[in-house]
Amino acid sequence: MARNVQRRAALADAGLRVLAATGARGLTHRAVDAEAGVPVGTASNYFRSRDALLGALGERIMERFTPDEEVLTALAAREPSLELLADYVRYVVERTTRQPELTRALFELRLEAVRRPALARILGDTLRRGYRDDVAFHVNAGLPGGAFEVALLHYAMDGLLLDLLTTSVDAGFDADEVLSAFVSRLAAGVTPRPGRAQPGRIPTP
Amino acid sequence: MARNVQRRAALADAGLRVLAATGARGLTHRAVDAEAGVPVGTASNYFRSRDALLGALGERIMERFTPDEEVLTALAAREPSLELLADYVRYVVERTTRQPELTRALFELRLEAVRRPALARILGDTLRRGYRDDVAFHVNAGLPGGAFEVALLHYAMDGLLLDLLTTSVDAGFDADEVLSAFVSRLAAGVTPRPGRAQPGRIPTP
Repeated sequence: MARNVQRRAALADAGLRVLAATGARGLTHRAVDAEAGVPVGTASNYFRSRDALLGALGERIMERFTPDEEVLTALAAREPSLELLADYVRYVVERTTRQPELTRALFELRLEAVRRPALARILGDTLRRGYRDDVAFHVNAGLPGGAFEVALLHYAMDGLLLDLLTTSVDAGFDADEVLSAFVSRLAAGVTPRPGRAQPGRIPTP
Repeated sequence: MARNVQRRAALADAGLRVLAATGARGLTHRAVDAEAGVPVGTASNYFRSRDALLGALGERIMERFTPDEEVLTALAAREPSLELLADYVRYVVERTTRQPELTRALFELRLEAVRRPALARILGDTLRRGYRDDVAFHVNAGLPGGAFEVALLHYAMDGLLLDLLTTSVDAGFDADEVLSAFVSRLAAGVTPRPGRAQPGRIPTP
């Protein structure tokens, strides 16, 4: 069982390398088998359709963005503030830009999903869960703002990451300065307002 | 000459349809010829390489996003304010979501450019020019904020558009409410600060 989980993860990682090299169109079961160095047919055994394969990459990306427990513990020890929120967002940027091909792969999957309804369903589940978890974490941590501010920051940071990791408009401002402005302007002095996503257990950000 | 320009635009439009249907990988000169219903070899005459073809799509997208003169005149007649800025941004969203396949195509080109340095150069020129023109327009129109706020709004709206036009995180907030919050929070009460992009002539936003 554990071996199956490992094999599945290794296949997904191979799939992410293929996606980075060729785009979503080049991602076939056979290309994944070749990249992973496993017998032809292996990827098909784990992912029954192309949509299941593409969808699994989305989940694997989220898995690989999982934050480090030590970093989280250190952050959680601090008093909630705008500065703390900025450090959480900074840590998201650190993880996403340290693995740029993963962040780009998520953008590619979202675009490919426009052409593939079955992928859109799988990927939609993954992205909705990620946002709900972010909101729950934010609220439980007592950070400034609520579901609406998490959404604003999510969109803003996605746009910034797109600029950092693909062709840039080259505005000439420091990414960290932009991040700080987003946090302080979007989440300062706001009263949390209810959103559709409700806090539950404390997930990782 | 005018006919050449028309033919070039028609070929680029055919290329954008191919891109929407198949992604960047499916975009070949031959596919463009077939989509445009012209003899094989036509697209190659206008766009000498695949990078030139992909790059021309970026320029054509910007061309097709050109705002309507009447709308601009009506907006330009009003006093500069946060509300006016919101209406300008609203008009950007109107044009980009009315032609969703163009906005998505621009995201796809930016991702493809990561794998194609020659495309990155062409597309980079187009995107930098677009941002510089936005800043010049913003400053000349006396709108709140400066180059930094234009950059913040650019990133934030790119992220929102990505969510609106691809798989959404489904936060459950109205897009116009998000837009209004971005404008009022990112551009309110700020002193313009100099950016690398300097205002010049008044271009369209």
